[in-house]
Amino acid sequence: MLRTHTNGELRINNVNQEVTLCGWVQKKRDLGAMTFVDLRDRYGITQLVFSESQSELTMNLGREFVIQATGKVAERQSKNTNIPTGDIEIIVTSLVVLNKSKTPPFTIEDNSDGGEELRMQYRYLDLRRNPLRKNLELRHRLSIEVRKYLDSLNFLEIETPYLIKSTPEGARDFVVPSRMNAGQFYALPQSPQTFKQLLMVSGYDRYYQIVRCFRDEDLRADRQPEFTQIDCEMAFVTQEDIIQTFESLMVHLFQTTKGIDFDSFPRMCYADAMLNYGCDKPDIRFGMTFNYITELVKGKGFAIFDDAESVIAINADNCASFTRKQLDELTDFVKRPQVGAKGLIYLRCNEDGTYKSSVDKFYSEEELKKWAKQCNAKAGDLIFVLSGDLAAAQKQMNDLRLHLGNQLGLRNPDIYAPLWVYDFPLLEWNEESGRYHAMHHPFTSPKTEDLHLLETEPGKVRANAYDLVLNGTEIGGGSIRIHDRAVQSRMFDLLGFTKEEAQAQFGFLLNAFEYGAPPHGGIALGFDRLCALFGGQETIRDFIAFPKNNSGRDVMIDAPATIDKKQLDELNIKVTL
Amino acid sequence: MLRTHTNGELRINNVNQEVTLCGWVQKKRDLGAMTFVDLRDRYGITQLVFSESQSELTMNLGREFVIQATGKVAERQSKNTNIPTGDIEIIVTSLVVLNKSKTPPFTIEDNSDGGEELRMQYRYLDLRRNPLRKNLELRHRLSIEVRKYLDSLNFLEIETPYLIKSTPEGARDFVVPSRMNAGQFYALPQSPQTFKQLLMVSGYDRYYQIVRCFRDEDLRADRQPEFTQIDCEMAFVTQEDIIQTFESLMVHLFQTTKGIDFDSFPRMCYADAMLNYGCDKPDIRFGMTFNYITELVKGKGFAIFDDAESVIAINADNCASFTRKQLDELTDFVKRPQVGAKGLIYLRCNEDGTYKSSVDKFYSEEELKKWAKQCNAKAGDLIFVLSGDLAAAQKQMNDLRLHLGNQLGLRNPDIYAPLWVYDFPLLEWNEESGRYHAMHHPFTSPKTEDLHLLETEPGKVRANAYDLVLNGTEIGGGSIRIHDRAVQSRMFDLLGFTKEEAQAQFGFLLNAFEYGAPPHGGIALGFDRLCALFGGQETIRDFIAFPKNNSGRDVMIDAPATIDKKQLDELNIKVTL
Repeated sequence: MLRTHTNGELRINNVNQEVTLCGWVQKKRDLGAMTFVDLRDRYGITQLVFSESQSELTMNLGREFVIQATGKVAERQSKNTNIPTGDIEIIVTSLVVLNKSKTPPFTIEDNSDGGEELRMQYRYLDLRRNPLRKNLELRHRLSIEVRKYLDSLNFLEIETPYLIKSTPEGARDFVVPSRMNAGQFYALPQSPQTFKQLLMVSGYDRYYQIVRCFRDEDLRADRQPEFTQIDCEMAFVTQEDIIQTFESLMVHLFQTTKGIDFDSFPRMCYADAMLNYGCDKPDIRFGMTFNYITELVKGKGFAIFDDAESVIAINADNCASFTRKQLDELTDFVKRPQVGAKGLIYLRCNEDGTYKSSVDKFYSEEELKKWAKQCNAKAGDLIFVLSGDLAAAQKQMNDLRLHLGNQLGLRNPDIYAPLWVYDFPLLEWNEESGRYHAMHHPFTSPKTEDLHLLETEPGKVRANAYDLVLNGTEIGGGSIRIHDRAVQSRMFDLLGFTKEEAQAQFGFLLNAFEYGAPPHGGIALGFDRLCALFGGQETIRDFIAFPKNNSGRDVMIDAPATIDKKQLDELNIKVTL
Repeated sequence: MLRTHTNGELRINNVNQEVTLCGWVQKKRDLGAMTFVDLRDRYGITQLVFSESQSELTMNLGREFVIQATGKVAERQSKNTNIPTGDIEIIVTSLVVLNKSKTPPFTIEDNSDGGEELRMQYRYLDLRRNPLRKNLELRHRLSIEVRKYLDSLNFLEIETPYLIKSTPEGARDFVVPSRMNAGQFYALPQSPQTFKQLLMVSGYDRYYQIVRCFRDEDLRADRQPEFTQIDCEMAFVTQEDIIQTFESLMVHLFQTTKGIDFDSFPRMCYADAMLNYGCDKPDIRFGMTFNYITELVKGKGFAIFDDAESVIAINADNCASFTRKQLDELTDFVKRPQVGAKGLIYLRCNEDGTYKSSVDKFYSEEELKKWAKQCNAKAGDLIFVLSGDLAAAQKQMNDLRLHLGNQLGLRNPDIYAPLWVYDFPLLEWNEESGRYHAMHHPFTSPKTEDLHLLETEPGKVRANAYDLVLNGTEIGGGSIRIHDRAVQSRMFDLLGFTKEEAQAQFGFLLNAFEYGAPPHGGIALGFDRLCALFGGQETIRDFIAFPKNNSGRDVMIDAPATIDKKQLDELNIKVTL
């Protein structure tokens, strides 16, 4: 080793030891009689001291130079209590410059002066900064703990192939032309779904894999074309077994990586989540649940409410003092095209017990009081009301609720509120294609008690499907799968597959179901998102060492790129631009 | 859970417990008064007992049916000492058929009656067999132990991207057309080489990853287009540090998964390996090292030896009794085109102290005695001699040596002989392209003491490169990397890159070297091969859950396959067949 210790290691009891350290020059302070250098590596910072007579050693040292310094550990006169090595410093006797550095294009500090794009281009420098290092260390720690825990429960990590077959159902696949099988293509997996089900048929009974998945989507903010999933499957289980197993995994992760203890996670059925929060992944760190005041407000001459299918109100505690400007801003917020409301009604519950609303001319004080009562509002609260078609009003009110939650500081990233949402619908109607799509995926089983609806009202059939939600973000989802060939075939029918299409694309799975497929189910957790949330952040990008930008490009290595004609010819393909 | 216990769990002290088991019907024996069913899962086999009155439960049970059986644990009258559950059986009180099975196309036994192709097509059934299950369990265990060990040494597992950029150097890339960047392509990584080096530049100092790699090669036997690598890199280290670190990892793996203790591994420089074994990955489980008898045999009128650059002899202990037929077979072996020798000379050291060779008419007894002496042969031994150009004769003799090793049972897969081979050449001349190619890869550093040869005799420059060999198979290789931009540029020159090509393909790495790149190096171990060797087998295919065949096809899911014109259009490509 070129070093005897790391830069995070030396303490007061190392004083007088001869040591050799390696690292990067974080900072140099030339005080004339002495020069101090902060030497950095991923373990910490150690102060090096050079005397005036050594100035030729230090005069050319620049930021980010890589050096090897040998010297004696000494007690510092003025200790730095901010860092673990702050009691000591190294009286350097010899110095080797292992490599020079040009001046970095941005500062390697916790708060860098570099813009997003520049930092992406020089990702290898950005990764030197503490916040990113801590993110990747957390990611490592989480992956170790996931594996340790699942291994202790007899789960086997089994690798599934990355070169598989394209299936038009679902999102777009990335494809890979095959040279050896001319004119044919592999696809990169969007998930190992069918393979993990085959492993259940094979009797592996407890499978997991931390695995890369690929999706050729138009990238919304904070989506990546390649992402990592904790992918799990179990046989001979019920939905309850899966929920308990992975709740206990999460409890283990919270405990070991965050020091937070959870007893058990709350649960909410999909219908209640939609009713009370207007979304299937409610952030339950705060209240402001929905109140349906439709019946109360109709027939008083206010056409907007009279014409509305639903009128929904939420109550913001102690917000009666909101200014006109704040209310206008909230009105502007809900009128943004992404939210889509026509306007926002408010009802102020004044401290003196009176009420003031933006629709005073239609509603008496007495009537407004009834609204307040239904919303459990007290003096000093502020009620917001949105109306329209049920689904639209729920969606808009969910947006407003989350916006208010952010504004009022109710969404503290250091507070964790996990939640199971269950009993999802099996199918959702798609206007564009004029048919049902699988809400989870085509392999999800319908609830036995809803099976009779499958032919008559497929949209009402509930699935044995569940999501794990954390702080308003879906971090995982799963289901009990179909394990019966006939039911799976029926499902493909419902989803608009012809028999031939179903056989061509999923024949191997249908066939496998005829050779003793056990009851099984599973879950997949988004690992990038999980890391980000555990790191107290909203975006996944800085929890991935080398992410792509919103155009799917790696701007550091400049990929994707054109390839040689020779390569294209060997693959029997041609670019048609 | 649909079960209270697994089929490997119940023992004599569970007698009288009421249990529920799930699994597959391995075997049914109807003895009239009783019917026995062997119930199988991945944990073992448990015997179920049904009385005559329950015959309607069992009469339709077929092989591989999935069932759930409830009953009471009882002590067996005739115990089965071959299985851990052999002391008990279950007196079944109720039975649920969870799923039926058609008769499998081959038997689910340790030695199946199914042919290779059929078993690949029904891989999900083949994976039920114990040998494959044990392989995947070993693979899981090895991956857990690799991670546990490297984590304990402060290595971080960091995921690198799978969608990267194609580089013509090396093997062929698999490419992925980008829809969002029309006309451009990602490539799938042949290894995370440049990314792990960037992580060293970023200060991560101890990186590893168990990672999939891709290579679009014409598949030789036992190669897969996608394979898994234990990929590692360290900063601030010498070659010795890396060898010691990963030797200790291997010692840990041998100890924890095989119960075999190693103190340290022997080492051999590349030159000695070629000299004594004629190959860079010698199987040192047995001797039969090379003896160069060129000087002894020249000038006696035997033209073949007189014209040869080298004459190489190996001694097979106690093989003087080989029959004419055996010698003929060995001669046929070396004359196969894959080996390429013109013939095989032997020298029998008879038990009575006389000598008998196939070239008796050119060499006296006295001369043959000198051969035997140089080969350290004793009475009863058999010497084989091959001649020709040095490199060709070494290669042929290596083939013969390994063949004899197999024939004589000297290559016992349960005996493990690891070996480090070091001081590889930096470059090798390629006749076809008329230029030097990197023997390891373009990022490998030349040995400082050979640097002066780089301009004059590049072929003689040795690299800071090393391979880990196990039982004659290379299971890993690595090097100390170049970390200086000028040296790396010079290397690209030598390899025939123009400045523009080097910048276009590896500019990000060259640039990174200007911002404080530390000395670093690493290693990559072939994980599939490691699993196979630890499993005592030669082929990797049965250590991969879903492998491809020799045409790169997954015959179970039937991939690769054609894709929709719509998909091709979106990707701006066209098949040119």
